[in-house]
Amino acid sequence: MRTRVGIVGAGPAGLVLSHLLAERGIDSVVVETRSREAIERTIRAGVLEQGTVELLTAMGVGARAVAEGARHEGIELRFGGRGHRIDFTGLTGRAVWLYPQHEVLKDLIAARLASGADLRFGATDVELRGITSDEPVLSFTDADGTPVHLRCDVIAGCDGSSGISRRAIPDAVRTDYFRAYPFGWFGILAEAPPSAKELVYAHSERGFALISTRTPQVQRMYFQCDPHERAEDWSDDRIWAELNARVAGDGFSLAEGRIFDRGVIPMRSYVCEPMRHGRLFLAGDAAHVVPPTGAKGLNLAVADVVVLARALEEHFATGATEPLDAYGPTASRRVWRAQHFSWWMTSMLHTDPAGTPFDLKRQLGELELVTSGTAAATHLAEAYTGWPLG
Amino acid sequence: MRTRVGIVGAGPAGLVLSHLLAERGIDSVVVETRSREAIERTIRAGVLEQGTVELLTAMGVGARAVAEGARHEGIELRFGGRGHRIDFTGLTGRAVWLYPQHEVLKDLIAARLASGADLRFGATDVELRGITSDEPVLSFTDADGTPVHLRCDVIAGCDGSSGISRRAIPDAVRTDYFRAYPFGWFGILAEAPPSAKELVYAHSERGFALISTRTPQVQRMYFQCDPHERAEDWSDDRIWAELNARVAGDGFSLAEGRIFDRGVIPMRSYVCEPMRHGRLFLAGDAAHVVPPTGAKGLNLAVADVVVLARALEEHFATGATEPLDAYGPTASRRVWRAQHFSWWMTSMLHTDPAGTPFDLKRQLGELELVTSGTAAATHLAEAYTGWPLG
Repeated sequence: MRTRVGIVGAGPAGLVLSHLLAERGIDSVVVETRSREAIERTIRAGVLEQGTVELLTAMGVGARAVAEGARHEGIELRFGGRGHRIDFTGLTGRAVWLYPQHEVLKDLIAARLASGADLRFGATDVELRGITSDEPVLSFTDADGTPVHLRCDVIAGCDGSSGISRRAIPDAVRTDYFRAYPFGWFGILAEAPPSAKELVYAHSERGFALISTRTPQVQRMYFQCDPHERAEDWSDDRIWAELNARVAGDGFSLAEGRIFDRGVIPMRSYVCEPMRHGRLFLAGDAAHVVPPTGAKGLNLAVADVVVLARALEEHFATGATEPLDAYGPTASRRVWRAQHFSWWMTSMLHTDPAGTPFDLKRQLGELELVTSGTAAATHLAEAYTGWPLG
Repeated sequence: MRTRVGIVGAGPAGLVLSHLLAERGIDSVVVETRSREAIERTIRAGVLEQGTVELLTAMGVGARAVAEGARHEGIELRFGGRGHRIDFTGLTGRAVWLYPQHEVLKDLIAARLASGADLRFGATDVELRGITSDEPVLSFTDADGTPVHLRCDVIAGCDGSSGISRRAIPDAVRTDYFRAYPFGWFGILAEAPPSAKELVYAHSERGFALISTRTPQVQRMYFQCDPHERAEDWSDDRIWAELNARVAGDGFSLAEGRIFDRGVIPMRSYVCEPMRHGRLFLAGDAAHVVPPTGAKGLNLAVADVVVLARALEEHFATGATEPLDAYGPTASRRVWRAQHFSWWMTSMLHTDPAGTPFDLKRQLGELELVTSGTAAATHLAEAYTGWPLG
């Protein structure tokens, strides 16, 4: 069996890439270890940059995101007991959409299947072979038990941070850039009305908190915690007390409700370089992980494959290898900017357990600067709503 | 002997305050332990914000700064072997002036003496007494050996980071916010022509370097070093090799020459709060120290006393104490913004000895962001050229 592009992973990167290639008349096969149901049922938050929404719309899969997602024209930065709005639309003319990642995946999977794309869910024994040869092979066992040897022109590794693709790049060639943060996020889902119209990013002496929303009936909230905190050690009362303490002041109060999901997520930054090795191209979380503070994960995956689809199109049309060589350096520029932005949002808003009172006051000085003028706020708004794609 | 405002220290804060008070008909005495000659001979670099130059000009002491100083309409950020200009004037309409601090002091001292101000250089045994009483006393022994007990309405502590004023605030009341950086600056003065028209702030894997200028014949340069580095361990050749390695690329080359001054300066951030205790008011370095990266030291001292002079004027005119109460909180807002800016410039451009390759790449992502759009560059330019005074 043969295809031009073997795609490992049916996440945002793999599915968008498959779609963009099909638009260009380039066939691909998507191989995914999880079942379609597992993917669609795994609840994941999502903040879509305006460019991501525009791309999905141009691809014909953005209608539900626009209709059912919530357009957010700003966020609130809370500190010193007061809220300060960053007016994205006023500053940049742009906005973001709150629309969960698993809903994006549902839309993408439905659209791919409707156009007859070859998606292999529930694959096992996935292996990459000959990635430095002219004909790399993506071999796997199909859901029905059939062994498949998929010969490809190139392979796109879109299988996330724990997938096999990244590890297929030999250690001698690969550099892993890594940063662990000395804190995690304690996240909850609660049955409650929204507490605010827009996302609230709160700085406090007790640490960061994020008040987000999923639907009019279900709210998502996070607070900075020890990365080794055990979610089961926290009663509902203790969680609400902690969240309230971090957003207190200014008449603000949280609408509380039954907490039906809780967990602790780690915070880390990671980049793999190079993003290409031979005929293997990494995209999305396979190549980089950002802390969730800047909401860049899904958007960065989409940005990668926009660059990759264009490079592959040019390569297949002309046979030139320059477009393939340019993929990594081009995508990497956005990656490191997004890494910086995610680190910046994180370090501006979280308290460092090893920090001093100086650091806390400096953060407040920074937040004053960001919220009192237009230049720094515009810088933040441009990054949050997303730099131009490709 | 009596005066309204006893001023400890004839640095930028003390001398500008004395002048601003005289303009308002408020008498003061400036008491300084150093001799006039020592002050005027201590070579110190200076970058004056536009607002500082405008204030000096309005005070009638800015003519030489404008005529002999160099107006700089931007700086260069160098990284990845290439220079990127931040166009201050294009972005903000503003500029800075390179004019050494000791020249500012010469101008201020001459102007104060010409208007008959009471400046006591070479004082010894300076002590503050009764600062929480209605009539604090600034006692000292005059240069001619006469003991003086200067009864004041208020005392302004403008005697720098190692002066007595800050220590007069009891430990129980005072909070010292402090941050030491794990590096210092190795600074030289060299007989050479300028290497660039504007200041060059260079990021490199070997650490930060700053290419500055003093006159067309004398250049000032710095490079990040271990804070315990011994200047005498470095030969001229080694210094030039290190500086050249940090600014290399892009055809840039340093004009070298005889090095006639070298030394290592520590990098630290410090803020004392409160800035007022009883009838003692701290201003300038007595209240806060910034690392030199943002060139904010002198400008922040001037900004403090602009606020203080206005507060004292209102207090003496009406007897109200609210203006005195407002001094610290008002001045402090600018102080913490400047502390943030100085920390930001420092952390963006210096390598952290404990840092990882991730941190280095993130810095490059940040520098790309700052130099490729206008929002972040404007934020930097506004801060560097100075936020509006008072």
